[in-house]
Amino acid sequence: MGEFELLVKVRERLPPPGPRVRLGSGDDAAIVVPDGATATSVDVLIDGVHFHRERASLAQIGCKALATALSDLAAMGAEPGEAYVALGVPTDLDEDGCLKLLDGLAALATETGTTLAGGDVSRAPALTLAITVVGHAPAPERLVTRAGARGGDVLVVTGELGGAAAGLLLLESPEETRSSFAIHSDTKNERALDSPVGAALIARQLEPQPRLEAGKALADAGATAMIDLSDGLGGDASHLAAASGVGLRIDASSLPIAAGVAEVAATAGRDPLDLAAGGGEDYELLATLPAERFERASAAVGGAGLTAIGEAIAGAGVEIRLPGGGILEPAGFDQLS
Amino acid sequence: MGEFELLVKVRERLPPPGPRVRLGSGDDAAIVVPDGATATSVDVLIDGVHFHRERASLAQIGCKALATALSDLAAMGAEPGEAYVALGVPTDLDEDGCLKLLDGLAALATETGTTLAGGDVSRAPALTLAITVVGHAPAPERLVTRAGARGGDVLVVTGELGGAAAGLLLLESPEETRSSFAIHSDTKNERALDSPVGAALIARQLEPQPRLEAGKALADAGATAMIDLSDGLGGDASHLAAASGVGLRIDASSLPIAAGVAEVAATAGRDPLDLAAGGGEDYELLATLPAERFERASAAVGGAGLTAIGEAIAGAGVEIRLPGGGILEPAGFDQLS
Repeated sequence: MGEFELLVKVRERLPPPGPRVRLGSGDDAAIVVPDGATATSVDVLIDGVHFHRERASLAQIGCKALATALSDLAAMGAEPGEAYVALGVPTDLDEDGCLKLLDGLAALATETGTTLAGGDVSRAPALTLAITVVGHAPAPERLVTRAGARGGDVLVVTGELGGAAAGLLLLESPEETRSSFAIHSDTKNERALDSPVGAALIARQLEPQPRLEAGKALADAGATAMIDLSDGLGGDASHLAAASGVGLRIDASSLPIAAGVAEVAATAGRDPLDLAAGGGEDYELLATLPAERFERASAAVGGAGLTAIGEAIAGAGVEIRLPGGGILEPAGFDQLS
Repeated sequence: MGEFELLVKVRERLPPPGPRVRLGSGDDAAIVVPDGATATSVDVLIDGVHFHRERASLAQIGCKALATALSDLAAMGAEPGEAYVALGVPTDLDEDGCLKLLDGLAALATETGTTLAGGDVSRAPALTLAITVVGHAPAPERLVTRAGARGGDVLVVTGELGGAAAGLLLLESPEETRSSFAIHSDTKNERALDSPVGAALIARQLEPQPRLEAGKALADAGATAMIDLSDGLGGDASHLAAASGVGLRIDASSLPIAAGVAEVAATAGRDPLDLAAGGGEDYELLATLPAERFERASAAVGGAGLTAIGEAIAGAGVEIRLPGGGILEPAGFDQLS
């Protein structure tokens, strides 16, 4: 498989470019006419570090790589524009495998209105994806950084927490544990799941969805700071607090924990709050906004759901308060990525 | 070495951001206010495929990775803007090594006015760099693609050819060959070179310079198509010819061959034209323009030098004509990247 031949086949399968793209893949560079401001982020994912080929299909790996990159754009409130994909291909991945991976990636690109505008392919000792995404906004001040939270702001989170960590526990668990959730493996890369709850948790882990619409809605509703939950609520809240120069007080009892997380945690002998606050990879958005804007923001976010989980206060650091009055120290959690 | 700690140290060493950059590295995404159009390109480089750690210093590897990426912007006639660096770090590269590599990269960024606006770091089985560069232009039509050459256009090349291939031959040659050019190795990664010619050839291979100013000058002077010479004159000319739907006729005797290439080729039993036309990695620019614009373009390119080497004709493909009337078929050439 030559690099040129693969790139030609890839280009044939790409969805048509978005309206800002004047020239897509195939020249020295892509040409884009941006709006007033761009938000650009790069993520690198490597087999054995961020994912394991034996646990996910190639399409899922491609999809998740783009999803995690787009999640950074969601956290800025940017509209997704273009993605540039650098692919390192090991000798045991043939052309068909590369195309499966890129099909998974292209499916999410189509779904989110992202143009795959360029790429590069190389041999590599392990499957490697480096994805650069560019998002757009009418003006730079419409993008939300981590740095604008003010004391008194309400702290909100989209969707539900802990699902990705529970999904990872299911994927790592022995067959008999998984089957207690009526989950069984068909083949190496295709899992037949009888339990909708278990399937949903595994999907949270393997096929995360970037909260692009919620991110734009929160930006438009006046979010003062925003970050996506990749490392886990505790860690990512710390980044936001440090960047904004505030403290964050989180009420553990208010965390929106995904269905099935409690059961999986119990089976694994873990505290469900550990999964929700320390697990990471949920790719939900954590944001601050003036308290009086919460209702409007919640309506704008719509179906994804928005939960007030605490507040920004003068000070520094993150405190997760337990119902009994104690403080949660989320245990470190081995992440798949 | 944690990812966060390394990124903090890297950020401390970055030169100040350029005027378009509103928010650099450290948030979910960088925020940039572009001009009218952007040119974006991504390159991935992996140890053992595109470079060899035993042949180049870490600073040279970082420098070359950015140079090859910026060369794509030069080939569009874009002004360099931002670079985003995804770094895969093997276990035998410590924090100090990472910083050396990034210092090499940052030095070229400073020299070219490129802002290192974002990045990601991961463990990896082999040293991996994926670099996305964004260039700017006032409007999309000011950028030069590969596709605009017309029959009758003069074909031009900047600078000199064959130097990078000759440098590679020197690096690969046994000590006694190198010493015939008065070149000797001091330590594994630092070469003391007594011969300015040999040193220049090795520098062409290990520290290529993107022709950013020449690219802008050619674009402003009315270049109809442009590409950078990464794969070699023969191959890259074919890409330009195919994209433009023209043939290219090249006069081999007019090729500007770098000083020392003939001597190195003779020692290696190679034809110097093979190195100049098939060697690649010179990162010079190949462009077409209306013949009456050649003088103006040559003056605008200035010190780098511009040579007319042939013409675009109706038809397809690339023909490199030898002085005796034969046709050169450039031999395939093993490239370092």
